[in-house]
Amino acid sequence: MGILVVGSVALDSVKTPFGEVSEALGGSATFFSVAAGYFTDVAMVAVVGTDFPHEHIEYLSGLGIDVTGLVVQEGRTFRWSGSYGYDLNERDTLETQLNVFEDFLPVVPESLKAMEYVFLANIDPVLQRSVLSQVTRPGLVALDTMNFYIEGRKEELLETISKVDVIVLNDSECRELALEPNLIKAARVVLGMGPETVIVKKGEHGAMMFTGDECFSAPAFPCEDVFDPTGAGDSFAGGFMGHLARTGDLSAPNVRRAVIYGTVMASFSVEAFSVKGMESLTLSDIEGRYRVLKDMSHFEL
Amino acid sequence: MGILVVGSVALDSVKTPFGEVSEALGGSATFFSVAAGYFTDVAMVAVVGTDFPHEHIEYLSGLGIDVTGLVVQEGRTFRWSGSYGYDLNERDTLETQLNVFEDFLPVVPESLKAMEYVFLANIDPVLQRSVLSQVTRPGLVALDTMNFYIEGRKEELLETISKVDVIVLNDSECRELALEPNLIKAARVVLGMGPETVIVKKGEHGAMMFTGDECFSAPAFPCEDVFDPTGAGDSFAGGFMGHLARTGDLSAPNVRRAVIYGTVMASFSVEAFSVKGMESLTLSDIEGRYRVLKDMSHFEL
Repeated sequence: MGILVVGSVALDSVKTPFGEVSEALGGSATFFSVAAGYFTDVAMVAVVGTDFPHEHIEYLSGLGIDVTGLVVQEGRTFRWSGSYGYDLNERDTLETQLNVFEDFLPVVPESLKAMEYVFLANIDPVLQRSVLSQVTRPGLVALDTMNFYIEGRKEELLETISKVDVIVLNDSECRELALEPNLIKAARVVLGMGPETVIVKKGEHGAMMFTGDECFSAPAFPCEDVFDPTGAGDSFAGGFMGHLARTGDLSAPNVRRAVIYGTVMASFSVEAFSVKGMESLTLSDIEGRYRVLKDMSHFEL
Repeated sequence: MGILVVGSVALDSVKTPFGEVSEALGGSATFFSVAAGYFTDVAMVAVVGTDFPHEHIEYLSGLGIDVTGLVVQEGRTFRWSGSYGYDLNERDTLETQLNVFEDFLPVVPESLKAMEYVFLANIDPVLQRSVLSQVTRPGLVALDTMNFYIEGRKEELLETISKVDVIVLNDSECRELALEPNLIKAARVVLGMGPETVIVKKGEHGAMMFTGDECFSAPAFPCEDVFDPTGAGDSFAGGFMGHLARTGDLSAPNVRRAVIYGTVMASFSVEAFSVKGMESLTLSDIEGRYRVLKDMSHFEL
C-alpha cells in the first residue's frame, strides 16, 4: 500500500519576513515524502548532485523513506531560492539552478515498480509520463504541475493529464490551464481533460475538490504563525495520498477525509523552514488538527 | 423582530466583462434590505435626492421594506460608478458623487427606534454612532465599514466598533484595521476592539467568523456565473442579520447558520446587476443553496 513519488530534491534558500535559511533541504519529493511518511510507506525517485549533504539522505531514510530511487549524480544539486513579502501568498523566485535536475531521467527501480499509489510531483510532463510507463498498474496516480509547464509544455502536459486519476494544482494554475477566470468553471474544464478528481489548493483559503458533479470545500487550518509557505502544496499532497494509501479506501467520503489530512500536513509544513514544521509530529498532533478543522467547518441544517 | 438598517441608497453604474448598467438601483442599505426582506421585516434609514426615480421607492416598499426613514432631499442622489476586470475580486472605483449623501444626518423615525436588530452599513463612523444614540436598547447591533474610514477616521471608527456586537468586514479591511497581515491574528485583534463577533468576508473564498476562541469557516457558494459582485457584502449581511432576526436565536449554532444564509444571499446577489439576482426568489431557492453548502463542506471524522 505504499506510495512512489517522483519529483525534486533540492537545496532551498528562502527569505520571509520572519527569517531566512540557506541551502536547506527542500524539493517537491522531499516535502511530499516527509508528509506522507506519517501515514504509509513512501519511496522516492529523484536525483541529487555529489555535493548533496549525506546527512539529508540519512535523515530521509531515518524517517523510513525508501531512498533506493534517489540517484546521486556527478554535479551540483538542484537549487532554488525565493522570497516572500508580508503577503505570504505571493512568492518571488530569485534563482533556479537546475544543475543535475536538468538532465533528470527518472528510473523506477525494479523493487518499486509495483507500488500501488503514484504521485507525479511537479516535473516535466514528459518525465511524468515516462514514470507511468515504467510502473505496473498503479491503483491511483496523482499529478501536480506548475505555470511553467502550463505555459511552455501545454500539449505534453495535456497528454499526461489525460492519463492520471487526480490532478492537484493551485487556483491560479487551474484558471490558467483551463483559460477560464471562474474557478468553478475552470475546475470543470480540467475535469474534462481526463482526471476523475481535480483538487484546487487555495493557500490560506483552503482547498476545493471537484469530482463528477460533486464539489467539496475544505477550510484552511487557521495558522497564526505562517513562517514559510514553501512546500505547502507538496505536504498537502503527501497528507492526501498518505491517507488514501494507508486506508486503501477510495470512496467519496474517504477522499474528502484525505483532503483534510492534506490540509493538516500543509498547516504543519508552513510553520517552519524546510521540513522542520513536520518534524517529530505525533498521531495525536495530526488528529488534533483534523478535529479542529471538523469543528470549525461544521454547521447544522 | 425586525431590522433597522442605516446606509446608502444609490444609483450605480457598473461595468463588468459581461455587460454594463447605468444608474441602476444600488447602495448598501438597498442590497441589505432586499436580502434581509426574505427573512424578516426591514426598515431603512437613508437619503436620496429629488432626482431619484420614484419607481425605485415603490419597488422597495413593494417588497415590504419600510421606507418611512428614507428621506428625499433637495439635490441629486448619491452615485457610484465602478468597473471589474476578469478577476472579479478586484474593483476599480471610477467615480463617487456623494451629492445629498454628503450631508446625510440619519434620523431614526420614532416608529423605528425600538427595532431589535440594527445594521450600521458602511457610512461615517460618527453617523453610525449617532444612530446608536437614537435607538432604544437593540438586541444586536452589527457594523460594516471600509478602507476609507479605516484609513481616514480610525479613532472615530474604533470608538464606534467598541459599541457594537458584530463587525462584518472583508479580509483586506480586517488586516488593515488590525495592522496585522495574518488574517487569524488580525481577526483576534479586531475582537479585542470590543465586538463579540468578527465576520470576515473573503469573496469567492467564503467567510470566516471569530467569536471568543471559536473560529467558523464557511465555504462560498460555487457560483459559475458571477456577473457583478457589487453589493455582495451587503447582501451577505442581509441574509446573516435576516436569519438572526427571523429566529431570534443568538446561540452559537444558529449564528453559524446565519453566516450560511448570508453566503446564500450573496451568491444570488452576484448573479445579476443591481438587486436583480435576488428578485423573485422562493424559500426553496434559498434553502436549496443552503443544502448545497452543507453538502459541499461536510466530511466525516
